[in-house]
Amino acid sequence: MMIEKFTIKSKEKINLNDFDPEYTDQLSKDSIKEEHLKLQTKFEELQDVLYASKKFALLIVLQGMDCSGKDGTVKKALMGVNPNGFNVESFKEPTPEELGHDYLWRVHKAAPQKGDITVFNRSYYEDVLVTRVHKIIDDETALNRFTQINKFEKYLVDNHTVVIKFFLHISKDFQKKKLESRLEIPEKHWKFSAADLTERKFWDKYQQYYEDVLYNCSTEEAPWHIVPSNNRWFRDYFVLKTIVNNLEKLNLNYPEIDGNIQDLIKQVKDSD
Amino acid sequence: MMIEKFTIKSKEKINLNDFDPEYTDQLSKDSIKEEHLKLQTKFEELQDVLYASKKFALLIVLQGMDCSGKDGTVKKALMGVNPNGFNVESFKEPTPEELGHDYLWRVHKAAPQKGDITVFNRSYYEDVLVTRVHKIIDDETALNRFTQINKFEKYLVDNHTVVIKFFLHISKDFQKKKLESRLEIPEKHWKFSAADLTERKFWDKYQQYYEDVLYNCSTEEAPWHIVPSNNRWFRDYFVLKTIVNNLEKLNLNYPEIDGNIQDLIKQVKDSD
Repeated sequence: MMIEKFTIKSKEKINLNDFDPEYTDQLSKDSIKEEHLKLQTKFEELQDVLYASKKFALLIVLQGMDCSGKDGTVKKALMGVNPNGFNVESFKEPTPEELGHDYLWRVHKAAPQKGDITVFNRSYYEDVLVTRVHKIIDDETALNRFTQINKFEKYLVDNHTVVIKFFLHISKDFQKKKLESRLEIPEKHWKFSAADLTERKFWDKYQQYYEDVLYNCSTEEAPWHIVPSNNRWFRDYFVLKTIVNNLEKLNLNYPEIDGNIQDLIKQVKDSD
Repeated sequence: MMIEKFTIKSKEKINLNDFDPEYTDQLSKDSIKEEHLKLQTKFEELQDVLYASKKFALLIVLQGMDCSGKDGTVKKALMGVNPNGFNVESFKEPTPEELGHDYLWRVHKAAPQKGDITVFNRSYYEDVLVTRVHKIIDDETALNRFTQINKFEKYLVDNHTVVIKFFLHISKDFQKKKLESRLEIPEKHWKFSAADLTERKFWDKYQQYYEDVLYNCSTEEAPWHIVPSNNRWFRDYFVLKTIVNNLEKLNLNYPEIDGNIQDLIKQVKDSD
């Protein structure tokens, strides 16, 4: 798969129009079924050895417009995840206590410990996106934050946290259809917020500032992945494959046991 | 199913020998397959409406001897859980900061918010179990703590947290076999701890103090469930069924939307 094309290189200028949200690499849902099942099994194995070895942590950052499918990615792409050692942190509007601190304070607190996987459903990137769209911060502050964020991520990586960042890329028309369907299905009404309609008016601004983020905050340690997300099955496949690729690179091994195995087995056998 | 028999009534004197860890209610893995799938679907639906309605939280307390399958219960019984709004909190030996506080401090911090499900993998019950076995607290302190724990749980229930407590019941011989298998399979070595062998010597003491917990801390609001756990498939079925039963009693509904649906649909359709 052409994951490479969607992995943004450091200082690669981005125009989101060059990335088709409908893209599926000429694959179909059926054609990848078998590979997808293998990826799920592989992911379960890798999570187990990650958890057992306690050498690395994995942080997955999910960003995207409303209706891009952040919740769905957690539920579907990571299906089969062992909830032991797996966390999802959803960052909403900051509380007064959080606002009293610097913007990385609350996310750093929620970072995974070694052995664990944590998904940030929205993240510190909102502090250079929604805040910028609504002019809570100016361009200079945004630029400073890009540097701070890059340094923060480098620090995490240097301390054995793998950081994988996904931008779930959808079209404006796709968002409209999703908003409609949320209103048409009573069981989905709760997912609709009038604020989504307001934010939709800022679509172009968001896209522009996302391009800025993708350009400024793709580093060698922690590049952004643009995920074509109009087709949910492709999104799930892409995300899972990227995670598996990254975990495989770690060459994880199960830890050895302290002491002599035969002695220990004998002790167990001889116990009451 | 005879879940009732395994649900301990308030002030019901317990002898764990009366509960067979091999018990399967004359069912077989095959005979419940279809019902189990239905329970999984039901659970997914109930979690969705729990999350959407944000009226109740669900706290699941898992206790049991080493090898009783607490991790496995999270992974297998709750298979299909949506990780959004689902947390597992594993309580290990308290940190110095936690020890500086009262014993309920760290668990209260980790309690689920409304809409969410949290599993305590071990819990505040260790503060009347392992501490008692190793004589860190005396009987009088244990009795006082039973009262405090009952009041704490009542407080949670009164504030819309459903509390479901499972004691995963295995036989001493079953534990031996599990310890052996952990030593025999290299990929499972990491699950073995020499401390498990030490704790095994206190088996009878643990059973006695568990009986005390089951007797003193089964209340109308939050009874203990004794789960026959030698057969993992039965354990998973029992646990899932109990959770589904409890969630169904809440009669949860999806929230209504603020505003006129037709107006909102029109606004979406008319947007760019």
